[in-house]
Amino acid sequence: MRVYDIIKKKRDGFELSTEEICFIVNGATSGSIPDYQLTAFLMAVYFKGMSSRETLDFTLAIASSGDKVTAKINGIKADKHSTGGVGDKTSLIIAPTVASLGLKVLKMSGRGLGHTGGTVDKLESIKGFNVSLDYSEFLRLGETNGVVIIGQTKNLAPADKVFYSLRDVTATVDSIPLISASIMGKKLTADDDVIVLDVKTGEGAFMKTLESAKELAKTMVEIGKGAGKKISAVITDMNEPLGYAVGNALEVKEVINVLKGEKVSDLLEVSLELGAEMLYLSGYGDKNYCKSQFLKAIENGSAYSKFKEFVSAQGGSLQDFENGNYLAEYSLEVKAQQSGYISGLNAELIGRCALSLGAGREKVSDKIDYKAGVVLTKKVGDSALKGETLATLYTSNKELFKNAETLFNSSVTISLKKVRKASCIIDVI
Amino acid sequence: MRVYDIIKKKRDGFELSTEEICFIVNGATSGSIPDYQLTAFLMAVYFKGMSSRETLDFTLAIASSGDKVTAKINGIKADKHSTGGVGDKTSLIIAPTVASLGLKVLKMSGRGLGHTGGTVDKLESIKGFNVSLDYSEFLRLGETNGVVIIGQTKNLAPADKVFYSLRDVTATVDSIPLISASIMGKKLTADDDVIVLDVKTGEGAFMKTLESAKELAKTMVEIGKGAGKKISAVITDMNEPLGYAVGNALEVKEVINVLKGEKVSDLLEVSLELGAEMLYLSGYGDKNYCKSQFLKAIENGSAYSKFKEFVSAQGGSLQDFENGNYLAEYSLEVKAQQSGYISGLNAELIGRCALSLGAGREKVSDKIDYKAGVVLTKKVGDSALKGETLATLYTSNKELFKNAETLFNSSVTISLKKVRKASCIIDVI
Repeated sequence: MRVYDIIKKKRDGFELSTEEICFIVNGATSGSIPDYQLTAFLMAVYFKGMSSRETLDFTLAIASSGDKVTAKINGIKADKHSTGGVGDKTSLIIAPTVASLGLKVLKMSGRGLGHTGGTVDKLESIKGFNVSLDYSEFLRLGETNGVVIIGQTKNLAPADKVFYSLRDVTATVDSIPLISASIMGKKLTADDDVIVLDVKTGEGAFMKTLESAKELAKTMVEIGKGAGKKISAVITDMNEPLGYAVGNALEVKEVINVLKGEKVSDLLEVSLELGAEMLYLSGYGDKNYCKSQFLKAIENGSAYSKFKEFVSAQGGSLQDFENGNYLAEYSLEVKAQQSGYISGLNAELIGRCALSLGAGREKVSDKIDYKAGVVLTKKVGDSALKGETLATLYTSNKELFKNAETLFNSSVTISLKKVRKASCIIDVI
Repeated sequence: MRVYDIIKKKRDGFELSTEEICFIVNGATSGSIPDYQLTAFLMAVYFKGMSSRETLDFTLAIASSGDKVTAKINGIKADKHSTGGVGDKTSLIIAPTVASLGLKVLKMSGRGLGHTGGTVDKLESIKGFNVSLDYSEFLRLGETNGVVIIGQTKNLAPADKVFYSLRDVTATVDSIPLISASIMGKKLTADDDVIVLDVKTGEGAFMKTLESAKELAKTMVEIGKGAGKKISAVITDMNEPLGYAVGNALEVKEVINVLKGEKVSDLLEVSLELGAEMLYLSGYGDKNYCKSQFLKAIENGSAYSKFKEFVSAQGGSLQDFENGNYLAEYSLEVKAQQSGYISGLNAELIGRCALSLGAGREKVSDKIDYKAGVVLTKKVGDSALKGETLATLYTSNKELFKNAETLFNSSVTISLKKVRKASCIIDVI
């Protein structure tokens, strides 16, 4: 089998065989196929696409290119996965809640890069929290507590790292089969029984249009089914940040508030939809029943108990959050420059604003200021008078305020007409 | 300027600016752009093409990527260039003939690789012939004799070497703008006033269809005009080899025969058309007059005199050709396996047959058996009785005959119906 022939076959629009796809993925993993052939292949895929069968083969080959998280655990293992948003802390709300209802959530999660945060970073903003448990401890906590989240210690889907780093510099990222295979290839390294995908669409999301988000969702669900999973995708809005807090400790605080019963409307709405979908696919009952149980677990305190148990089992202490010691040293209130209704809060720009305050990483080697970030006072649809506070910015380095304030202001649109905020849940696929 | 943006722009079908194209070509030459970005770019060009303006810019950037052959010579410098055929020795007929009529032909020529031969290899089959003259001697002989042919000593169009080696392994060779830029980028490193292109079409040619050959010819002529050259392209047939001889010394012998007045029909027809076109573009007179002068130069012996002068000036001796000492030690006659009319002599297969006898190189490092090759006895349209000799194979290593004979036999098609041989000249663009 020659790489040249495989590139040419794809270039000419023919369907590749399973063997040909495995040959490419294995060659990418081992390094036996040079990068310059891989990028020509990726560009040919960009133009000619992949059939469902090819996409599934490509995904399975990526998932099998390294280690797998094979956990023999009693009960139904379920997980959710988001395509990445700003202020998205739903995993930390959903995992303990559904665990309190009997599902098992064993999650190896990534760190954040660029304008979207990572669950592992958020957890590390909790004093003492250990995301580097060894594997047996990971399994033990999953079994006993029902929820455990650690960083990626294993060599998961190394082929994806090769493809992704090449796509990133050759304008071959925006391809539905390649994106789907990348996300699902990583996701399938865990042997979850149930997977719920949160496909974000809008300004702050990777998929800017609803049409492309739906196509991505359908492709990923098809892959998941092909791999024998119970899977669905919820398409959610990511035009403005989810909830009010953007930044690691700030988001943990908001998670605690929601788990304690605070009704942060859009954040709770999305968490509820995704969590109920996980329960529903696990055979917990019909969707409405799952929703009511999800809300009940929050109301009766069992979700928050499970959260505390989870944090404590991984060595974390919530004391700083209880006594208000989770804010960075310096704060700056950003005021409305005119009166009206908030019609837009560009999630990507607010993500960049938080990043510029130290809440994220531009490069993998950057250090995070865990207490930095943005707390919104107003969300889309709210009215604001000129001079009223729209948000508070937090950082440990006050020189960063100037740039951050500019970014924040550029994220805001104020309209004179009343604005109605739509539901965050756009579709379930 | 970022390579990523240029790849994306081309991927999305937009026209690149001159600066963007130069950035890519300069980065390829210097090595500052990694191969994996260049191949993604090339694949995007494969799919989206290039406008005339882009193709010209790309060609000029390739031509300027290394040294140039700038020769201040009195008179009109003219050259022909072929896209590569089997048994194509027209350069060695045309160069001395048009030089005898006053044009200057200063040629830096390539070596052969694969099933097509190279002019430099053919000249090296002449005992003593020196293709490595230094540059001042090259210019001096061009000025005084009007014809000089050497190997590529200068660093000509290094960008083309980078692109070509990458295209060759990524299925991005078959792209009209890329092929045109590669050929013309090299051609334009010489500052000829007149260029006549011989674009081959058919089984033995790079362009298998007439349509693609015409498109390539038009694109290259447009580039040449854009670069300020007097240029035209002749589309010629390359279904069967040109002339009867394939192999270095064997071809030189055929050149001598033609220059001495032997009427080798297709070989003379193509040489005449190309040579007359060079004279015509040089302002020598109308096309018919140029043709008659070309033939006259052969008939009156001035063309052959010029050839002898040219060979002698570069240290070569034609004695071996005069006393019949130009054939390899072993010969094998290949016989017709049935009676009928020769309806096909697949040029590519005959090229591979000569290659397998030692007449060419599979790899750049291979040594050539200069006296090896094929001499046809029959050409398309000729009748043959079963058992009659179709060709004689020559080699210095008789173990090579078995494979070569198989290749030769597979190149021949014999028909029971009479076959009319068409003209080799298909079009002039």
